[in-house]
Amino acid sequence: MADSVVLLSGGLDSTVVLAMALEEGRRPLALSFRYGQRHSRELESAAAVAEHYQVEHRIVDLDLSYLLSSLVREEEEIPSGRSEEEMESSIPSTYVPGRNIILMSVAAALCESIGGGSVHIGANSVDYSGYPDCRADFFQAFEDMLALGTRTGSEGRPISIETPILFLSKAEIVAEGRRLGAPLEKTWSCYRGGGKACGTCDSCLLRLKGFAEAGEEDGLDYEVEG
Amino acid sequence: MADSVVLLSGGLDSTVVLAMALEEGRRPLALSFRYGQRHSRELESAAAVAEHYQVEHRIVDLDLSYLLSSLVREEEEIPSGRSEEEMESSIPSTYVPGRNIILMSVAAALCESIGGGSVHIGANSVDYSGYPDCRADFFQAFEDMLALGTRTGSEGRPISIETPILFLSKAEIVAEGRRLGAPLEKTWSCYRGGGKACGTCDSCLLRLKGFAEAGEEDGLDYEVEG
Repeated sequence: MADSVVLLSGGLDSTVVLAMALEEGRRPLALSFRYGQRHSRELESAAAVAEHYQVEHRIVDLDLSYLLSSLVREEEEIPSGRSEEEMESSIPSTYVPGRNIILMSVAAALCESIGGGSVHIGANSVDYSGYPDCRADFFQAFEDMLALGTRTGSEGRPISIETPILFLSKAEIVAEGRRLGAPLEKTWSCYRGGGKACGTCDSCLLRLKGFAEAGEEDGLDYEVEG
Repeated sequence: MADSVVLLSGGLDSTVVLAMALEEGRRPLALSFRYGQRHSRELESAAAVAEHYQVEHRIVDLDLSYLLSSLVREEEEIPSGRSEEEMESSIPSTYVPGRNIILMSVAAALCESIGGGSVHIGANSVDYSGYPDCRADFFQAFEDMLALGTRTGSEGRPISIETPILFLSKAEIVAEGRRLGAPLEKTWSCYRGGGKACGTCDSCLLRLKGFAEAGEEDGLDYEVEG
């Protein structure tokens, strides 16, 4: 029986978080969402990663298409070729209002319902400093809220929110994944959902830079190597 | 354009909360969920109440059937004819892990996406003292979490969580609804989803007692008048 929930998007970061939870001896359940994202290719990667590790995998349908963001709205353009300064200068257009809050709420509810003790999320405040829901003080506040608003919390067994890669650079995440033998080549990071990764969106640029700085080979095919 | 979100289950409490928000001059959007509840009869009531007030009404599909509770699981029995002491003695079997947390997260995300400033919920800590997600300190913690985890919060315009009936008795809620001319006869409280309200589940018992103590007529038909 699972004792924890890992939010598994199918991307690099959440896959490394799953590998870290397993190394710690947890028995995680992997949770993914079908939330109207354009890049549903991610979900195939999540399934492949869960299968690789032989962990239970749940995909929950969650319609978030009514929330404004280019990640879910077809008509808005995903930015290409931006510098890190541009990525950091403001809250990105790929910010989905309340997205992590909703995903973590469902994960915490599922965790409580299986009697688990922790929710693991691959949030990162280095590369995603512009996202308010990727900051350390937010995760602490979420944990405090859970301690008060759940049965397990009110019974003195609060669910913890684990953010093991919050302060790692992308190169450090890649290196940690390699050290743990995680199937990084099965992960998907691109915001666009094509046959190959685009190589130019914020997420591809960060991934490429991470592999380069870690001195590791990325197993993915790219349209353009940024 | 709406400036707030009211969680409208279709029950008595949330209908009175909607009436109170309108009296305050808010322009609320009413939000309901199809979450696998047995008593989907509630949703028809929610639609009727929203139409009565001519407010925009959104119903979001949300599969919570994987969470353990008799409210969503067919096989478990809903308790009948319990005393208030029995209702208060423990966390009830109708507690759905993380339910309010999830519903409020979606409401807050929708509120942020429409540029609204408040989420209104008909939680009550008098009749539902056993539910950890119906307590004042939980709602404060949720508001604190939102202030940190949302764009509007980080820009200094945090979303408030409004719980206007948190400390009202059922009789006071009924009286407030009558004062505001709320369409109480269109609301649905029964945990069972039959043609008539059962009159014996916790929710029916509380409602009947509320109307009796307020000296008001309940417009609903009951199988058994508890």
